[in-house]
Amino acid sequence: MPITPEQRAEIDRLRAVTATTRRATVPALEEILYEPLEVLDHGFVRVVDYMGDDSAVVQAARVSYGKGTKKVTEDAGLIKYLMRHRHSTPFEMCEIKFHVKLPIFVARQWIRHRTANVNEYSARYSILDREFYIPTPENLGAQAVVNRQGRGDVLQGDEAASVMKLLRDDSEMVYAHYEEMLNQREDGTTIEEGRQGLARELARMNLTLNYYTQWYWKVDLHNLLHFLSLRADPHAQYEIRVYAEAMLDVVKRWVPAVFDAFSEYRLGGTHMSKTGLEVVKRLLSGEAVTQEASGLSKREWRELMDQLGRAE
Amino acid sequence: MPITPEQRAEIDRLRAVTATTRRATVPALEEILYEPLEVLDHGFVRVVDYMGDDSAVVQAARVSYGKGTKKVTEDAGLIKYLMRHRHSTPFEMCEIKFHVKLPIFVARQWIRHRTANVNEYSARYSILDREFYIPTPENLGAQAVVNRQGRGDVLQGDEAASVMKLLRDDSEMVYAHYEEMLNQREDGTTIEEGRQGLARELARMNLTLNYYTQWYWKVDLHNLLHFLSLRADPHAQYEIRVYAEAMLDVVKRWVPAVFDAFSEYRLGGTHMSKTGLEVVKRLLSGEAVTQEASGLSKREWRELMDQLGRAE
Amino acid sequence: MPITPEQRAEIDRLRAVTATTRRATVPALEEILYEPLEVLDHGFVRVVDYMGDDSAVVQAARVSYGKGTKKVTEDAGLIKYLMRHRHSTPFEMCEIKFHVKLPIFVARQWIRHRTANVNEYSARYSILDREFYIPTPENLGAQAVVNRQGRGDVLQGDEAASVMKLLRDDSEMVYAHYEEMLNQREDGTTIEEGRQGLARELARMNLTLNYYTQWYWKVDLHNLLHFLSLRADPHAQYEIRVYAEAMLDVVKRWVPAVFDAFSEYRLGGTHMSKTGLEVVKRLLSGEAVTQEASGLSKREWRELMDQLGRAE
Amino acid sequence: MPITPEQRAEIDRLRAVTATTRRATVPALEEILYEPLEVLDHGFVRVVDYMGDDSAVVQAARVSYGKGTKKVTEDAGLIKYLMRHRHSTPFEMCEIKFHVKLPIFVARQWIRHRTANVNEYSARYSILDREFYIPTPENLGAQAVVNRQGRGDVLQGDEAASVMKLLRDDSEMVYAHYEEMLNQREDGTTIEEGRQGLARELARMNLTLNYYTQWYWKVDLHNLLHFLSLRADPHAQYEIRVYAEAMLDVVKRWVPAVFDAFSEYRLGGTHMSKTGLEVVKRLLSGEAVTQEASGLSKREWRELMDQLGRAE
Repeated sequence: MPITPEQRAEIDRLRAVTATTRRATVPALEEILYEPLEVLDHGFVRVVDYMGDDSAVVQAARVSYGKGTKKVTEDAGLIKYLMRHRHSTPFEMCEIKFHVKLPIFVARQWIRHRTANVNEYSARYSILDREFYIPTPENLGAQAVVNRQGRGDVLQGDEAASVMKLLRDDSEMVYAHYEEMLNQREDGTTIEEGRQGLARELARMNLTLNYYTQWYWKVDLHNLLHFLSLRADPHAQYEIRVYAEAMLDVVKRWVPAVFDAFSEYRLGGTHMSKTGLEVVKRLLSGEAVTQEASGLSKREWRELMDQLGRAE
Repeated sequence: MPITPEQRAEIDRLRAVTATTRRATVPALEEILYEPLEVLDHGFVRVVDYMGDDSAVVQAARVSYGKGTKKVTEDAGLIKYLMRHRHSTPFEMCEIKFHVKLPIFVARQWIRHRTANVNEYSARYSILDREFYIPTPENLGAQAVVNRQGRGDVLQGDEAASVMKLLRDDSEMVYAHYEEMLNQREDGTTIEEGRQGLARELARMNLTLNYYTQWYWKVDLHNLLHFLSLRADPHAQYEIRVYAEAMLDVVKRWVPAVFDAFSEYRLGGTHMSKTGLEVVKRLLSGEAVTQEASGLSKREWRELMDQLGRAE
Repeated sequence: MPITPEQRAEIDRLRAVTATTRRATVPALEEILYEPLEVLDHGFVRVVDYMGDDSAVVQAARVSYGKGTKKVTEDAGLIKYLMRHRHSTPFEMCEIKFHVKLPIFVARQWIRHRTANVNEYSARYSILDREFYIPTPENLGAQAVVNRQGRGDVLQGDEAASVMKLLRDDSEMVYAHYEEMLNQREDGTTIEEGRQGLARELARMNLTLNYYTQWYWKVDLHNLLHFLSLRADPHAQYEIRVYAEAMLDVVKRWVPAVFDAFSEYRLGGTHMSKTGLEVVKRLLSGEAVTQEASGLSKREWRELMDQLGRAE
Repeated sequence: MPITPEQRAEIDRLRAVTATTRRATVPALEEILYEPLEVLDHGFVRVVDYMGDDSAVVQAARVSYGKGTKKVTEDAGLIKYLMRHRHSTPFEMCEIKFHVKLPIFVARQWIRHRTANVNEYSARYSILDREFYIPTPENLGAQAVVNRQGRGDVLQGDEAASVMKLLRDDSEMVYAHYEEMLNQREDGTTIEEGRQGLARELARMNLTLNYYTQWYWKVDLHNLLHFLSLRADPHAQYEIRVYAEAMLDVVKRWVPAVFDAFSEYRLGGTHMSKTGLEVVKRLLSGEAVTQEASGLSKREWRELMDQLGRAE
């Protein structure tokens, strides 16, 4: 279970309190405010605060364009225009804060996105919980052969069983030794009187990278969309992609017009190189272009044919 | 008058609408939400949105310190601790958005603070308003002699009158010529049929730096406090300091416990060099330290004596 | 003339000194090191320092991909791969520092790119030079009708002459009054004994936005390319585009393999929306798609047809 | 041994090549360029590139202050002035690039400093080396009692021996299982034909946080000094502090005048609160101030007495 009874009680307490505000408010997001959206076996994402809505993007754009925008009569149209032309600053005018619980190896990828505010649980101060990530059998991918950083088929039979056992046993063992070195159990009780216990800031190094950590992560909408375009991508590692997908649902609730524009111009859109575009023009003019005559490498040719939905 | 009747109507419209929210809400800030706080002769600062309150800082700190913070029983105490030890990330968990109207030369200083989101009125798209800053007589400082970037006494008599007239006449003249080049009046009407009018993106270069611009400026609390510590400082130029002072009042309403800690440890606090601290220790031990024997330059000695409230 | 005799002598002095280094060094860039590349009537861009070369990008990528990159045998191929897949961090490993002299209204656009280091000439400390930008006749564009932020035809005849005269006269007049208020001439001499002179930080507000300022601007290669992709674009204002073009030439000298990849995938590349890509697929399958049946707005349809080089 | 024979050969190859440059060059830093400075049991820091020197700071400051700085005749004096008054932008004009090998739990602290460029070894692409950190006996601190995030006495006797054994055994075991899951040894050879091997991006999660990773880390001098002021502090965890100390030596070689100013105003300097400063003034005036009458909490009083070198 990703959240503890104490956390559940705290969430219920927070959700029961309402206030009156003059700020832009989004009922569809209020509905799930504070609620954990479960991800992986023990993780979650939950929205703990937000600022702005679709109109805040429009409002900022109108300040930029001043009287000049009187012509643009429809907000959704303006949002599409901004997204299409990569006018990113109006999207920075919305902000959202998440509480995320995630395995450390996922946190290490995530933190590479620098344009966000973070407060992470400190294992120097406190004892980490006994919670670690174990993939489900269908996510136990073998190493891909072509793509050096990807997964291929799912492991089967004995190999799968053996891997699962190793992961689970090692995770449990390192935690047992973590407690032993601390001379303290997860619940804070002492194991053996008379021993001092290793400093928490040292003992933590015995935990494996599948242990869960948690943090508050606050980001503006522009940078969130950039994060999601990279991490909701099929090439992203599954274990971070599921977080991105949960957050995409949040974006859809929060700023539906922005979500539509993002789907049309980013998620569903594509990029073509100069030579790739030339190939498209030649194809459209009726020329039977081959890879050899295209000016593209085999790999780029294959990628372009994939984009264009052409079987080779 | 800093705001137009249209803006006043828009503000009243926004202020009349309230919604129910589960988010942290600050009644003292809601009171002034959207309201322009007047600054200089035509400028203003107004809060258009915010996220978080004093508790949001505490909440983020508690996630970092986990169970370890159970001992710190009082929120204000924790906030003081964080401020004193420069633990800045919990303060990044609050965010505020201002709408600011300010002279261009002030905007040029302001924008040097990079860790914020900005949408500025674009003079490529739209015609700038006929509004420019003229100092009041008591702010018409002469060039300081010692401090190369400061002001000395206030100009008097004929010199003051002459400066005022030059500033005002030139400001009016460049705007008249701006309209003439655009072949368009401030209200959008054409001056002379048959002329094309210079592009707005070019004509704007004829305006002087005291013309007003406006922007939305969104920033987290940590970076706002950093901005205020520099710009509310007596060494800051008067014309930006008055904006900082208006924003300090906003901070006081918004996050009173943070404001108190900021006053104690930043605004009212001081920094001492290694040698300066040595001098203090020697003085406390009864030694009659002189500048020559202090290891400090004359300038640093004078600054230290000022800090310690000692007349020389 | 964009540079003063003192600056010329300083440049010659710097260029005459060489040292031996173990750092990556780029002879083609050393050739122009410190030399001003003239831009507009009084502006320039000059490279004053740099770090890294094409190989530094490859080196950083190889640290990321470790043994896994042994397969990629060619550096240029790896650079193209990184650019195509938007792996931006290796490009952040190169850094360049420019000294730029530019009109204030151009500086105001430029500074919006926040991910750079800047030290600007301070008009609080020092008197600005009597140098202002006046467009050449062929750059005196009229306001565009459709594109609210663009230029249309070039102004002609009396209108052009009148605009030129207004720009020039106002620029000269505001400077004369700037000196008068300061009670100091450009060369630092006093105009009239007995007057105090207005503080420089105030007097500067009387200057128009076409006055030149200057700064040191330091940026990593990734962020420089992002800046150039926006500012070397045909939609960018001419007066900033000419700076971007001068800097593109610098990039070509400095990191030729990166420049080639940038030309292929960014400058010459294009972006298609989800619906736009669908239209291309339908066209390729032989369907005679019309705007009405395309799912695209008229404007988007026109943009797509332009991309594909199709007359309507 | 922190570096492999292949790395040693690569370093020797790089160090053997020199070039002529017009750039600012620092012989004392060239001496150690590329050379690993050993840290912990398998880690290192090495400088792989740099831009600028003490003069680059001065040069940037002079552009800011223009003619106004002619009075400041000495560079070291100007650097001290900039440091004292927290004029940070000139220090951003120098840049340095490090190659660092460090345990993952140290990397997790380090990466929280966001204003830097990073390329880290990817365990999605490549197999991590069998190298993990084990503290020396004198660094095996017990948990501190008062300071929840610090270390107290060093563990002794059986407890120390037991902790050492647990750390070492677990580290070795998780690596053996890492290889087994990958079905591949550290040297890339296959363990058992016919098995697929788990994807590298998954298998890595079985490693403990004391495993070494490595990255290129590039940062400007201002942000490096900020990092060092936090991480070379006695309150920083020992395992990151030793890296900071190695880098302080680098700064001393690279920009000696900046290093001196940093030592005087940051490392050796101190900060006093408003009330703390009042206490100092009262003490200097001869008043026998007690904690109770000071307005300071017991903790703050103790900290102030420590600053002033007063035994209680």
